[in-house]
Amino acid sequence: MKSNERVSGATSGALSPDVFSPRCPSRVLFDHVTSRWALLILVALSNQTLRWGELSRLLQPVTDKMLAQALRTLEADRLVRREVYPEVPPRVDYSLTERGQELVALLRPVVDWAQTHAEEIIADAD
Amino acid sequence: MKSNERVSGATSGALSPDVFSPRCPSRVLFDHVTSRWALLILVALSNQTLRWGELSRLLQPVTDKMLAQALRTLEADRLVRREVYPEVPPRVDYSLTERGQELVALLRPVVDWAQTHAEEIIADAD
Repeated sequence: MKSNERVSGATSGALSPDVFSPRCPSRVLFDHVTSRWALLILVALSNQTLRWGELSRLLQPVTDKMLAQALRTLEADRLVRREVYPEVPPRVDYSLTERGQELVALLRPVVDWAQTHAEEIIADAD
Repeated sequence: MKSNERVSGATSGALSPDVFSPRCPSRVLFDHVTSRWALLILVALSNQTLRWGELSRLLQPVTDKMLAQALRTLEADRLVRREVYPEVPPRVDYSLTERGQELVALLRPVVDWAQTHAEEIIADAD
């Protein structure tokens, strides 16, 4: 019983209980935005508009399939805006929505932390 | 040329250039901590020690293989501490290291944001 209590303590705790419920919207959203490519796309677009090819080069070795999937999800969540210009060949621009910018502002300290500690942490792990 | 300039602008920009370089330590670390299960483990352990079975229940539908892999990576990065007690059956506790606590403190606003906006965002996406 003791271990069950601890788990139920966790799910009713102060910190984001719902991300632990598989069918809860916040878990679904959490899964969307914490996918490796989604996060890198959000960071890449944080202060600029990019085209498909630019994103693809920046996120190498992402595959077209993974990139397309991540962008579709971010677009459906209205974190990323996709604009198609009637040019030949067609030009497609990706940028952050206001909601996307809000999220990226929160992600920035996490990314900065990863940058600062990366070498030390990866060296530890070797 | 214009599109190349934009990409190179991105990689030398103010926000975390290195996460875009596949062999850079910060990209490796970024991949570790942004895996779905790693993030949920970090959040789960944010203010408590948990055993294997408790983590497993909390993170359902995680498989044993995924959980073991995520915990090994977090342990190697010294974000999570694993303590084995010589009991029968053996008791294994997982908790955050100081470094892990530092990271979780930065992740908390992201998780809170996801919680607050989840319903609205998932509804948009339907």
